[in-house]
Amino acid sequence: MEDIATAIATPNIALVKYWGKRNDRLILPENDSVSITLDESVKTTTTVLFSDRLSRDAFYIDGSESKIEGVTATAMDVLMQIKKMANEKRHVLIASENTFPSGTGLASSASGSMALVYAACSALKLEIDAKGLSMLARQASGSACRSAYGGFVRWLKGSNDDGSDSYAKQIADEKHWNEVIDIIAIVDQKKKKVASREGQALTKETSKLYALRKEIAQEHADAAENAIIEKDFERLAMLIMTESNNMHAVMTDTFPPLLYLNDVSKSIIYAIHELNESSGSAIAAYTFDAGPNAHIITKKQNVHEVTEMLEGIEGIRNIIECRQGSGPRLSDASVIKDEMYV
Amino acid sequence: MEDIATAIATPNIALVKYWGKRNDRLILPENDSVSITLDESVKTTTTVLFSDRLSRDAFYIDGSESKIEGVTATAMDVLMQIKKMANEKRHVLIASENTFPSGTGLASSASGSMALVYAACSALKLEIDAKGLSMLARQASGSACRSAYGGFVRWLKGSNDDGSDSYAKQIADEKHWNEVIDIIAIVDQKKKKVASREGQALTKETSKLYALRKEIAQEHADAAENAIIEKDFERLAMLIMTESNNMHAVMTDTFPPLLYLNDVSKSIIYAIHELNESSGSAIAAYTFDAGPNAHIITKKQNVHEVTEMLEGIEGIRNIIECRQGSGPRLSDASVIKDEMYV
Repeated sequence: MEDIATAIATPNIALVKYWGKRNDRLILPENDSVSITLDESVKTTTTVLFSDRLSRDAFYIDGSESKIEGVTATAMDVLMQIKKMANEKRHVLIASENTFPSGTGLASSASGSMALVYAACSALKLEIDAKGLSMLARQASGSACRSAYGGFVRWLKGSNDDGSDSYAKQIADEKHWNEVIDIIAIVDQKKKKVASREGQALTKETSKLYALRKEIAQEHADAAENAIIEKDFERLAMLIMTESNNMHAVMTDTFPPLLYLNDVSKSIIYAIHELNESSGSAIAAYTFDAGPNAHIITKKQNVHEVTEMLEGIEGIRNIIECRQGSGPRLSDASVIKDEMYV
Repeated sequence: MEDIATAIATPNIALVKYWGKRNDRLILPENDSVSITLDESVKTTTTVLFSDRLSRDAFYIDGSESKIEGVTATAMDVLMQIKKMANEKRHVLIASENTFPSGTGLASSASGSMALVYAACSALKLEIDAKGLSMLARQASGSACRSAYGGFVRWLKGSNDDGSDSYAKQIADEKHWNEVIDIIAIVDQKKKKVASREGQALTKETSKLYALRKEIAQEHADAAENAIIEKDFERLAMLIMTESNNMHAVMTDTFPPLLYLNDVSKSIIYAIHELNESSGSAIAAYTFDAGPNAHIITKKQNVHEVTEMLEGIEGIRNIIECRQGSGPRLSDASVIKDEMYV
C-alpha cells in the first residue's frame, strides 16, 4: 500500500530578521520576525511517499540522492515526528525539486522544509492547519515556518519552553497590499559564508550588543506589523533598512566577526539611499540576510527606476523580480521517478 | 619683535576607540579611549611665529596656504584661546609639514593639532605641562589629546561640563613594553568616507545600539589598561579586535550606515584570525578607524609572519611599520620660509 502527496512552497524574505535562538533543538527564536512570502517564481516542489515496497528511507534533491546530514537531517527528524503522529511505520521516499533560477543565492531551506512537512502530513492524511504546519516547519528550519502563509507573515517567538506558542501568523494576505514586491539582486560572492546556524550561535555567545538587539528587533516587529496594516510604505521602508543594518551590526560585533556584506552590497546600499534622497521619500528599501545578495523591497510603480539603478552597479549577476505569493499548496504532479525506489 | 617655536608630534592609533561626543564644542567624548603613540616614521612638524611684521594670520600646510575651514578652523579657535591666555595681540604665522609617506591614509589631524598647540604655547612661553597640552589639543581635534605622551595613553572622558577633567594620561611610557608595534596596511579605497565628525554625530543620533556601545567601550578601556600594565599580549589582542568590531558594529547600525570596511579590510580580518588560529594564540590584532586601512598590532618578534601574511593579500597598497613613539618634542628647525610672511 502506498500513500503519496505533493506540495509546493515558496521562500520568504524577512523584513524583521531572525538571528539567534532561545532554544537550539526546538528552534525557538529570541525575537519575533516579519516576512513577505514570495510568489512561485522561486519555489520547491516536494513529493512524499510512504510505501511497503521501500527497503529504506531515501531523500532526493533535484534528482540526486541526498546524504542525511545538515538541514536534511533536521528535516528527517521532523518527518519522524510526523510519522509518530500518524502511527506510521513504513519507509518514506522524498523527492524535492527547486525551480530557483541557477545561482540565485537563495536558500531553499525555507520552501523545502515547508513543502516537505505539508506533503508528509497530507500523504498521511493528518488533520493539520497552517499554524500546525508552521510549527513543524519551524523545527526543520526556523524561518521556514513563515512560509506557511502568503502575503505578510509574523513568526511569534513565544515564551513556552516546549515551543507550543512559537508559530507563524498571517499579518495580511497577498491581496491586502500587493503593490509591495521584492527585487532580488544576486551579487558575486568571493568568500564562503559562515553557515547561519553556526553564525547565530556565535553571535549569541560573543556579541556584547546582542542583548539590546533582541529588544530592538522585537520593537521592529511590532512597528513593521503596524506599517503593513496601515500600508505606510515610507515607514516600512525606513524600518526595513534600519533592521537590516541592525542585524548586520551584531554580526559585525560577533567574534570572529561575520561580515556578510561585500563591496557590491555596499554600493547597492548607498545607491538606494541616493535614490530615496533624490525621490524625496523612501521608495525602496534594502535588506540582506546572511550573505551579500540584496533584496530590494519596493512598490510595483517603482520597479523601473529600481531596476535601472541596479543595472548601473558593477558586480550584480542577476536581478529577479518576485511578487507576493499566496502560501503553500498541494499539487497532483509527483516529482518521484521510478528509479528513485530503493 | 618676533616669538617663534617649532614642535614635532606624531599620530596615535586607538586600541579602544573614540566614536561619539558628549559635548560637540568642547570635544568631550562619551567614553575613555586608549592608544599607542607612534614613532616619528610618521610625524608633523609645526612652527608658530608671532610677529609685529605680519599684516594678518596665515596657516601653511605642506608649503601651501590653507583655507581656515574644517579642522584648521577649529585649530585656529584653540590658537585664539592660547593667545588670550598669554594676552597676545600680534598676528600669527603657522607652517606645518607632514612627513607621512604619500597615500598613507593616515589623518594628520592628531599630530598636527598637538604640534600646533605645543609650538604656540612654547613661542608664547606659557608654562604648560603635557596634561594642559592634551586639553588644548583635544579641543582642536579630539583624539589629538592622546598624542601628548609617548607609549600607551588613555584619554579620560571626564564628567565635568566644562571639560576640565577630560584629558590624556600616560598608562605606560614607550620603554615599558616596547615590543608592541603597529603595522599599517594601506588599502585601496574606492568610496570617499563620511567625515568622522559628521559620522560620529550621526551614530549618536540614529544608532539604537549606541547606548550600550558607550558602556562596552568604557569597560574595554579599563581592561586594555590592565592588559598593558600586565603586558598580557593575548588579552590585549583579543580586546583590540573585539573593540574594533564593536565600533564598526555601531557604525553599521547608523542610518544611513557607515560601512568603512571594504573587501580588502575583510580579507585582512579573516587572515589575522587564521594566523592566530594556526599560531595557537593571538599574536596579532587588527584595528580599523573610520576607513578601510588596517592597523595590525603585534610584537616585534612576529613582524615577519604578519608582513608575509599581508603581502599575500590582494589590494594592499603599502605596508608601514611603526614603533612606539616618545611623544611630542620641541625642535630648532623652523619650517617657516621667507615667502610665507604676509
